Order: sequence, then structure tokens, then C-alpha cells
Amino acid sequence: MSTNYTVAPWRSAIAHALHHHRNLAHARFLQLATVGINGRPTNRTVVFRGFLTDTNDLKFVTDRRSEKVVHILQNPWAEICWYFPQTREQFRIAGDLLCIAEDDPDHLQLHRTAAWRELSDAAQLQFLWPSPAKPRIKDKEAFSPAQPDPNCPQPDFCLLILNPEQVDYLELRGEPQNRTMYWRDENHNWSVEEVNP
Amino acid sequence: MSTNYTVAPWRSAIAHALHHHRNLAHARFLQLATVGINGRPTNRTVVFRGFLTDTNDLKFVTDRRSEKVVHILQNPWAEICWYFPQTREQFRIAGDLLCIAEDDPDHLQLHRTAAWRELSDAAQLQFLWPSPAKPRIKDKEAFSPAQPDPNCPQPDFCLLILNPEQVDYLELRGEPQNRTMYWRDENHNWSVEEVNP
Repeated sequence: MSTNYTVAPWRSAIAHALHHHRNLAHARFLQLATVGINGRPTNRTVVFRGFLTDTNDLKFVTDRRSEKVVHILQNPWAEICWYFPQTREQFRIAGDLLCIAEDDPDHLQLHRTAAWRELSDAAQLQFLWPSPAKPRIKDKEAFSPAQPDPNCPQPDFCLLILNPEQVDYLELRGEPQNRTMYWRDENHNWSVEEVNP
Repeated sequence: MSTNYTVAPWRSAIAHALHHHRNLAHARFLQLATVGINGRPTNRTVVFRGFLTDTNDLKFVTDRRSEKVVHILQNPWAEICWYFPQTREQFRIAGDLLCIAEDDPDHLQLHRTAAWRELSDAAQLQFLWPSPAKPRIKDKEAFSPAQPDPNCPQPDFCLLILNPEQVDYLELRGEPQNRTMYWRDENHNWSVEEVNP
């Protein structure tokens, strides 16, 4: 997680895009790429869960039984690609992922528990479903568990935190288009450069 | 490119989703993940340009000066993530990428030229813009080149062909959800398995 927090210069563009798309639920969906244990890229849709308080880190949630948790343990590097259709903006955000699981230290559990509490009932239920990507359990009862404690994270619930190091912001609506690169240095200062689209 | 062509079993679901979203231009946008030369994942939005005739291979286009061309030369493996918002379906398609550039053999140029001809005037023009991701050229004239020959691909125009090996199809609208995995073997036969979402 970031230290020496100041709001990164690319945050205002994301805030603007999120506000513009506030009535479009799937505008909070984005694609997360990681590298598999075979060295091949993997890519899936995840839901943006907001920024971690007093940081520029993005929050996602995942199931400990999903393969991306294995990938992240071997190679924490990730790049998200977030396209906003109404404003025609793309954010590519690269950084390293921290996966906070049930057995992580107490000071991290604070964040994990807070993220669990922010999930909808339906989203909480999914952490009690049978193991993802295993042969399909035909019994529908298996997908109808009792509602878990809304305040106590289920064992398989993990919080993913992306600590951005580079942001590539593309505005297709520009004349001709605009593209801005942002880099974070070791002191958590951000550099900005306008580049060709 | 595929040989022994039969239409893959996951194609009908994509055809249905494309038909359902036929009035939503950005439903043809999807996210392509590759691995960078530093071993880190990269991820960007690309436009689906249809299937290569008589194959199950997906077509995209790119600029030879873009970094993904360098990535693909070192590691051709890719995974696309394609989310259809109205039907709430996700396709994750993994396979290897072939990049057809100006100096590739004649039998591949046929496909490259055909893809060039299918581009809009605006899309063709972008291959004459200054080098992507380099410091911004402020002179707007640099982004207003003369329209190139609509029948003759510009030197930096490349056709990307994704040859799928695995498809992970998720239907969020299911009860509870449906997820189907497809794998291609060496004889180009596809296996199918229903898995837990």
C-alpha cells in the first residue's frame, strides 16, 4: 500500500468518468490481466470496489479458490484496462497486487473486513458456492446457501489491492486524440507526459 | 491459422451476443492481454474485426510501432476478455497471436490487404500518424495526413490473428450462473465441460 499519500494526478480523470457513468453499473467493470504460472497472460472482468482510504490503490475482491490468487502469489504484477464507453476514455493501470486473505496479519484484516461489509448480499453469497471452475455441481441447492454473517468475512473471501506504478490514459474524443502517461517514482511522486495517441 | 476447419462450438454464443449488441458499436471492443518483455502483463482495448474466413481465428489490427508487436514476437500467447453488457456474458479466449506485417510472405499478405480494405477512412489515417507513445507532436498537421490508398496497406499496418486454444464462457444471467469451458486439442477438435461459475 502507498505511503506519503497525495492524490495522484490521474485520479481526477477517473473520478470524472465514474461520475459521468454513475447510472451505468457495468462502467465499474474492468479487465484485470495477470501472468499465469505457465508464463502466459490471463485476463478477466472484475468489479472496481473503490480506492483504499488515504491511498491511490484500487480495491477488488476475489475468491481464494480462483486461479488468479495462485498467479498473484508467483507474480504480483498486473495491468488493468478500464474502458468508459460514454466518454470514450481508456485507463491502463499497471502495478502490483496485494491479496489479503483470511490468514494475513491483523492490520490488513481491517481492510478485508471493511470490503466484505460493503458487498451486496448476493455478492457475499457467492463465496459459499462450490469451487469455481470445477466440474459443475448440478444440485441447485449447492448454490443456495444460507446468507452468511454480513459483518464477518467468509474464509475464501480475499481483498485485492492494486498499487499503481504507471497509468496510460487515452481520450479517443480528442482532436485527434489525447494520451497522457503517468509514472510513479520510489518517493511516490508522479511524473506526467503528453504522448502521441 | 487453423486447419481442418469446423465451426467451433463456442462460436454460436459469440454470434448471438454480437447480434444482440449489433447497435452498440463498443460491443466489438474487447481487452487483449499479452506479456511484456519484462515478464509483466499488459492489457489494452482492441476492436474485433471478425473471424478469418474458414477459420475460428479472430482478427484485430495494430500498428507495427506499438509495443504489443514487440511483446508478441517474444511471447505470442494472449488472452482476450470480451464482456457483453446487455446479455451479461463474458468470453475469455486464450491462444497464440500471429502478427502479419509488411515483410511477411505473400500468402499472408492476402489477409493483411483484405483487412486494410475493411478499415474506415479514419482508421486507415491513424497508420500515418506520428509514432504512438512518443512525446506528443504538438503540430496538428502531423495528425492530418493525406488519405492513404484504400487498397494498399500502409507499411506500419499489421493484421493480428488470434488462434484460440481455450475458451471460458460465463453467463452471469444464469440461475445461479452458467460457465462452460472449451479446449482445443492438437487435431483441432473441441472438448466442452460445464463448470461451476
